[in-house]
Parts: sequence; structure tokens; C-alpha cells
Amino acid sequence: MLGLNVTAPPAVSPPPGKEQQAAGVGILLQISMLVLSFVVGHVLRRHKFYYVPEASASLIIGLLVGGLANISDTETSIRRWFNFHEEFFFLFLLPPIIFQSGFSLAPKPFFSNFGAIVTFAILGTFIASVVTGVLVYLGGLTFLMYKLPLVECLMFGALISATDPVTVLSIFQELGTDVNLYALVFGESVLNDAMAISLYRTMSSVQSHASSGQNFFLIVVRFLETFVGSMSSGVGVGFISALLFKYAGLDIDNLQNLECCLFVLFPYFSYMLAEGLGLSGIVSILFTGIVMKHYTFSNLSEKSQHFAAAFFHLISSLAETFVFIYMGFDIAMEQHRWSHLGFIFFSIIFIGVARAAHVYVCANLVNMARPTSRQIPLKHQKALWYSGLRGAMAFALALQSVHDLPEAHGKTIFTATTAIIVLTVILVGGSTGTMLEALEVVGDGQDGALETIESNNGYIAPSYQEGTSSGSNLKMRLKEFHKSTTSFTALDKNYLTPFFTSQNEEEDVSDESMRTPSRGRFQDRA
Amino acid sequence: MLGLNVTAPPAVSPPPGKEQQAAGVGILLQISMLVLSFVVGHVLRRHKFYYVPEASASLIIGLLVGGLANISDTETSIRRWFNFHEEFFFLFLLPPIIFQSGFSLAPKPFFSNFGAIVTFAILGTFIASVVTGVLVYLGGLTFLMYKLPLVECLMFGALISATDPVTVLSIFQELGTDVNLYALVFGESVLNDAMAISLYRTMSSVQSHASSGQNFFLIVVRFLETFVGSMSSGVGVGFISALLFKYAGLDIDNLQNLECCLFVLFPYFSYMLAEGLGLSGIVSILFTGIVMKHYTFSNLSEKSQHFAAAFFHLISSLAETFVFIYMGFDIAMEQHRWSHLGFIFFSIIFIGVARAAHVYVCANLVNMARPTSRQIPLKHQKALWYSGLRGAMAFALALQSVHDLPEAHGKTIFTATTAIIVLTVILVGGSTGTMLEALEVVGDGQDGALETIESNNGYIAPSYQEGTSSGSNLKMRLKEFHKSTTSFTALDKNYLTPFFTSQNEEEDVSDESMRTPSRGRFQDRA
Repeated sequence: MLGLNVTAPPAVSPPPGKEQQAAGVGILLQISMLVLSFVVGHVLRRHKFYYVPEASASLIIGLLVGGLANISDTETSIRRWFNFHEEFFFLFLLPPIIFQSGFSLAPKPFFSNFGAIVTFAILGTFIASVVTGVLVYLGGLTFLMYKLPLVECLMFGALISATDPVTVLSIFQELGTDVNLYALVFGESVLNDAMAISLYRTMSSVQSHASSGQNFFLIVVRFLETFVGSMSSGVGVGFISALLFKYAGLDIDNLQNLECCLFVLFPYFSYMLAEGLGLSGIVSILFTGIVMKHYTFSNLSEKSQHFAAAFFHLISSLAETFVFIYMGFDIAMEQHRWSHLGFIFFSIIFIGVARAAHVYVCANLVNMARPTSRQIPLKHQKALWYSGLRGAMAFALALQSVHDLPEAHGKTIFTATTAIIVLTVILVGGSTGTMLEALEVVGDGQDGALETIESNNGYIAPSYQEGTSSGSNLKMRLKEFHKSTTSFTALDKNYLTPFFTSQNEEEDVSDESMRTPSRGRFQDRA
Repeated sequence: MLGLNVTAPPAVSPPPGKEQQAAGVGILLQISMLVLSFVVGHVLRRHKFYYVPEASASLIIGLLVGGLANISDTETSIRRWFNFHEEFFFLFLLPPIIFQSGFSLAPKPFFSNFGAIVTFAILGTFIASVVTGVLVYLGGLTFLMYKLPLVECLMFGALISATDPVTVLSIFQELGTDVNLYALVFGESVLNDAMAISLYRTMSSVQSHASSGQNFFLIVVRFLETFVGSMSSGVGVGFISALLFKYAGLDIDNLQNLECCLFVLFPYFSYMLAEGLGLSGIVSILFTGIVMKHYTFSNLSEKSQHFAAAFFHLISSLAETFVFIYMGFDIAMEQHRWSHLGFIFFSIIFIGVARAAHVYVCANLVNMARPTSRQIPLKHQKALWYSGLRGAMAFALALQSVHDLPEAHGKTIFTATTAIIVLTVILVGGSTGTMLEALEVVGDGQDGALETIESNNGYIAPSYQEGTSSGSNLKMRLKEFHKSTTSFTALDKNYLTPFFTSQNEEEDVSDESMRTPSRGRFQDRA
């Protein structure tokens, strides 16, 4: 935002306070909408009315205000203040949301399901993107829907495959579901943002360097460059922060402010470093969040820990609510290409199909590698299929596609994406509670699962019986993979944690005590 | 920032990531400078090296990086990211700083010195502005310096009369000075920002409605409109927030995030409300800060209190440090009209004279009204004179004057202001410690003063002896005024506090317990 205004301001006096006054009214409106969203969300939750989760409420408030502004049409100057650039979105709203996703990952269920989560997030998102892209392309070829080139279809597939954790997870938390299912949905939706954005960027660069002679190999290299590069830079910054806080000795009482200032600057540093290197800041900040929570966090003084957790939660709540309000507002204000209703209709069907392929393939792969006691049951698979809401990340990428693609194409994708977001957030979000109850993954699962966690000191035991493995080659390899994620847990416990954190002995205790507030924190998401 | 980019982005693909990448590098640089400032400031404080206070360090870092960027000159795109609009300054950097000023006012010393503070801030700033303005005008008439019209001289006088608390106060805290002197310097520099901005705006509107036939009466009305209107809106929002938090029942444990989100939105709401009404957001947010700290704060749950205090401290530290860095950077980058060195030289002399008039007149007025036991001693007057650093507010107003005034005039004022800021921050800031020791207001004062506070339950007794008053009419009126501020304390205690806060009984306790961390918080300003 420091320089969004590229054009120099006129040198001789424009009406001095007017510009600022219009800005004031615009921002005032936004703040009022934020306050309203928080209050409405709170009231709805207090009355246990799960049909309109908070995100839907924000979206609807945005839609209403946008609609009003659209009808009245007098407030052109205020309107301008809402029409923000997607840069603002990428530089200032998404980072806190994504960082918080990584930061609030409960490390133990996450790491014990690491293999499954990675399979779902990386392979699954790839499958979903390609299936959606190809189906949309075929739809175009067969005149079912607006025709887009294959690369653009794949871009659309990538951006629409970024699922959003917010709504579903708050309901999961509220109702109490199986910990493994929770970890899987959360982990997947966190990591698949990284995957989707990397895929999108790769496709986008293929599209802009339009030479169709580009071979597949180069695309893969570029994707790996983006994904692995961003991940490494994020993890690197996280490790640096852990070492800094381990050795700087800032955890004495009266330096709390300095400690917090530095802690708060690191995620953003990671984000901007990646962007500056031409990588993906979102992917980087996500991994910084995971690493900082796992290592740096325990090097802070206790007060700063409380503060940092509350701070990131606050900032991300504000950003998240604002994003949903803004999406609603923008959807009501933008000129959409409603001529392509067919595109929207078939896209929705296709993403359902793609999500089914994604869940089915990944769940079967994971089940092959897992012992029977830890299989992902069919009802969990159904819940996973159902919880594929689309949210902020899809919106942001669609907003960017308007700039990246020829106008008509970008507009079509943008309209379809916003329609899909509104429908999934309002319909799927509103019915998640009912669905979870219908699938019987509510309540009953919780006690058992929590018990498992308690009895295993937080780890969901990766103790599968070697004996049950049948000879299939694929299965063996999958088990190898599963084993390697298990040995990552060991590596972490024996080498990384002692190296990067200071309170080696207390670590388990602090983790134990943190898990509870972190679950508590989810519940006050109001 | 939501709409600083007024020009529509080009519809067909510009280099997709490039813009964002440049932004990334620019912001990365800024974050690095922030981190560097915090670390350097911390190291300097740890070694008790008071000659370079934190603000100077930030300013110097900004100057150095700006100088480097200026020499290399290759980084034009990064450079653009630093060149921000003063709107960003006014809408996003100043509000947290000013709010924190109000929010961190220790209410008891502030209210017990209320009469003196108001005299210094309102009357004193008016005197300083007029004296500076008239002297600069006379200087122009006698060809000593660049000639500006009278109204513009008065605008310059107003903007340059806004003193900055940051540097001096951190040193005061560090060395421990008399509580009354501290309250006076702090209170004055907080309130005089409000006065200076109101005066500046009034003069600015006189200047733009250029009719010289405007009579004095209208100017006074406009000033009162700005000042009183902004103050009322700020106080009103503060009271509303107090009532909301008193009755909403959000202070139960798992609603902490909701509570904090709402609490954090109120100051900004107040700011934008005032801006939207065409008033001064800065003045409004300042009074919202004072009211929210005094009433709303005690209605929060204990956890949220800790969080809110740390949050505002954090945000304002970041904004403050950023402002000083940015000032340094901008001073090194801007093209200044160094041809007007005379203007700078004489301005500095004139503001010294004006500050002397300000302190002398106000101190004498206050002393007339006070009993001999509570007179402001000469050494305190000297300290007050010396502590008139200029900082962020003067810079922001000067930045605005570039837009408000004809180009050459605005540039001259801007150059002079930045030069004055650099000189006062570096020279005066660096020598404050020495000065305080020379004036013997260090150390010895603290114990006694703190004792006074302790023994009076925090109030510095306004128990002056009626008997000593001699018959002068002016003196009588001043005493009336002083009495009225005393009765304000009573009004507050008997009516306002019970009405706006919930924990009536605990109030004293929580205030007592808060004063200590709030002093502690000042000390960790590193």
C-alpha cells in the first residue's frame, strides 16, 4: 500500500480535506461492517444457529451493503474506496490469514497424519486441478460451456482447487469431530493453498510465455522451483527466528514489547523475502508459521507467548472477516458476465467430480499404506468430499486472473469463481452441521479420539503392524513413505527441537498446555 | 490504502509478478530497517548510551539507507515503494501513535495537573504558533528569509508547534524525573498535537478560501468547530465503547478474541468518524484513547486488558519507528530547496523564541493560580523549554502543506520542517540526558514524587491553601479555573466512573495495579 498510488499527486491544491474525507467515510463503512459481522456472528453462535456460520454472515452483509451501494449509486467516491487492488489483498490481507493457518496447526495430530495430509494436499490438489481443468476444457470443446484454452482451463482448475478451512473448521470445532478427520481437513486445506498457488503461478507463466512448444519437463521444474523454493525460504526464516529468540536473551520481563515486535515482523519478512525472490510469499509464510509455532514459539517468554497467540488470532480474524465482507461487496458491485451461466453450472458439477476423484484416489492410497486400525473410513471420505468449500484464496487468484488473462476469459473465470464461492460458503457451509450429524462423525468420535491422544502423550500412534502387509510393490513404497514421515517425527524430537528451542525439558509440558488453549481459541472464533 | 490507486489497472496482462515483486523488495527493505532499528535501539539502551536515543537511531538508519538509495539510483522501482502518499501517513501510521499517546496517559498525574496541561497545550501552543508565524512573516518582510504570506506563516507556525513526546519521554522515564514534570511534558505534547492540527486546518481553510476579507470571528468559530467537534466525537465514541463493554457481557473467558477485535476497532472507528464528518481524526482518536483507557479499559476481562495494552503498545512502537525511519529516508531522497538555508536558520531561532514565550507565559499563569508549594520551578520551566522536539506530527503536516500551498512555498516549509526535525531529534534528543542532569531534575525528584503519589493514593493533592491568595482579579479567575478542573476530578469519581465502568469497587485496585506495568511498559520502549 505504500506505493499503490503510482501516479504523482497533483502539485497544486486539490480540495484539501475532501479526498481524505471520502476515504474516511469509506473506511468508516468498512469498520462498521466489520463490527456488525462480529456482533452478528457472535449472536448466531450464541444461539447455536449453525445454518449461517460467521463467514456466511460476513459474506451476506457484504452482499447487502454492496447491493445497496449499487442501487443508490450516489456514493461514487465511497465506492472507489472499496474497489481495492488485488495487490492489497495479496500483500496485506492474505498473509495474516495464511500465517495463522500454519501457526494454529496443532503440531501433534498434524505430524502424526503427515503422510495422509501431504498426499491429500499435494497429489490430491494436483488431481483435482487437472481433472477440473480437463473437464472444463472438454466442456468448452463440446460447446457445453464457454470455451477457454487448455492452459487457462488448468489455471482455473488450480485456483478453484484451493479449499478454505475457515467455515468448516469452526463448525467441526463447535460440534466436536474425530481428531484425525479434523487434522486431515485442516492440514489439507492449509497446504493445498500452497499447492494451488504454485500450480496457478506455473500455469500463468506458461500462459504468458505463450510458446506452446514448452515441454512438460520445464513446467514441472518451474513448479518445483516455486513450491520447494518458497517452502525452503519459509522454513529457513522460521529457523532463523528460532535461533534468534533462543540466543538473543529477550525473554526477560521488561523486554516484552521488543520481543513481540520482532516476533511479529518475522512472518512478514518471510512473506516479502519470498515475493522479492519471485517465489510465492503465501507458501513461504505458511511454512514460517508452522516452523515458528513449533520451534520459535517456545523460546518466547510466557507473556509474549500469550500475546503472540492472541495477536495473530486477532489479526487473522479481522483479515478473514474483512475478506468475506469484501467478497460479498465486490460480488454485488462488479459487472459480471452472467451470460455464462452455463459455465458456472457445469463448473460446479466438475469441481464436485474432481473433488470426488481427489478424495477417492488419495484415501485409497493412504489406506493402502495404513494398517486396518487406522484406515480412513468411508464416512470420513464423504465428510472430506463435502468440506471442500472455496474461499479467500480462490477469490484472490481469480481476481489476479482478471489481470493475467485476456479480458473476456478472466472475467468469466472471475464470475464463475465468485459464484462458486458464494454457493459453497452459503449452502455447504450452512449444511455442514447437518451433514456431519448425518454421517455420524459428530460427538461420538471426539471422546475416543481425544482418549487416544491422551493415552499416547499426544501422538496418534504410528505403530502399525508390519505383519499385515501384503506383498504389493506400491503398498511397500507407500509404507516406506509413511515410515519416512514417522522418522521425521523422530528427527524432530531428537535433533531439531533440541537445536532450535531452549526449553528442551519443558517442551513437552508447554506443548501439552498449549494444545488445550489452542483448541479453546478455536471455540471462541466468534 | 484501499483505494490509493485511483487509476484503473491496465486490463491486459502487465508482467504478472513483477509489480508485486518490486513491492516485495521495497517492503522487505522496510521490514529489515525496522528490525535493525529495534535491535540497534535495544543495544544502545542496554549500554545506557543516551546520546543516540531510539528515535535518532531510526532516523539515522533511514537517512543512511535513503542516502545509499539516492547514490545507487538503480532501484527506481523500490524507490517508488517508499514514496508514499501523506494519506497513508494520516490514515494508517499516525492514528496508532496518537491513540497510544492518549491510551498510555497515566490518568492520575494527568488529571491532577489538568489545569496546567490544558494551559500549556491550548494557550501555549496558540502563543507559540502565533509568535513563530509573526516572526517568520517579519523575517520575510525584512528580507532576512524567504517571504511567505502571513496566513502561510501562521500555518508554518502551527505545524512547527506540534512537539513530539517520544524521544524526550523515553529518556525521562529511563532517568526518572519528577512526576509532575513528566505529566506536564507528556500531557502537553499529547494535547498540543490536537491544537496544532486544528490551528493548521483552520489556517489552511482560510488560505484556500483566499478571501482576505474573512473576519477574525469566523476563524475562531472554525477553529472551535474543528477542535470541539473532534473532541466531542472522540469522547462520544469512547463513552459508547465503555457502555458497550459494560453491558455486552463479553468479559467471559472464551470470548477474548471477539472482545479484543471490537476493542481494537473502536479507536479507528472514532478516527474515521471524525474524518468522515470533516473534523480532525487525530484529535478525535486522542480523546477516544483517553476515555477508553479511563473507562472502557476497566470493563474488559483481565486477559483482554493485558492484551489490549500490549497490542496498542506494539502497534504504536512499530508505527513510530517506521515514521522515524521514513522521515530519515524521505529527507535523504527528496529534492529540498537548500537555497533557503536562511529560512531554516532563522526558523530555528524563532521557534526557540516562541517556545520560550510559550513556556514563560503559561508557567507564570499556572504559578499565579497555584499555591507556592506547587509552583512550577524555574528548572522545570527550562526543562519544558528544552523538551520541545519536533516529530511525526510536524512532518505529516509539512507533507500536507506541500499539497495545500503553492509549490515553492510548500517545499520551503517542508524542507525547513524536516531540517528542524532532524536537528531537534538528533541534537536535542541526544543531549536531553545531559540537560536533565545539569538542571538537577533527575533522580532526586523521582523518589519524592513517587512517594507523594503513593501517599495520596495516586493523586497529587490539589489541596492548595485558600489563605495565600492575594486579591488580583486574574489570579482569582485562574483559581476558579483550577478549581473547576479539581471538580472535574470529583465529577469523574462520583458520576462518570460509576456510570461507565462495571467494576466500581475494584476500580481503584485495578488502577493501582495498572500504573505499575504502565510505567514498566515505558521502560521497555526498546
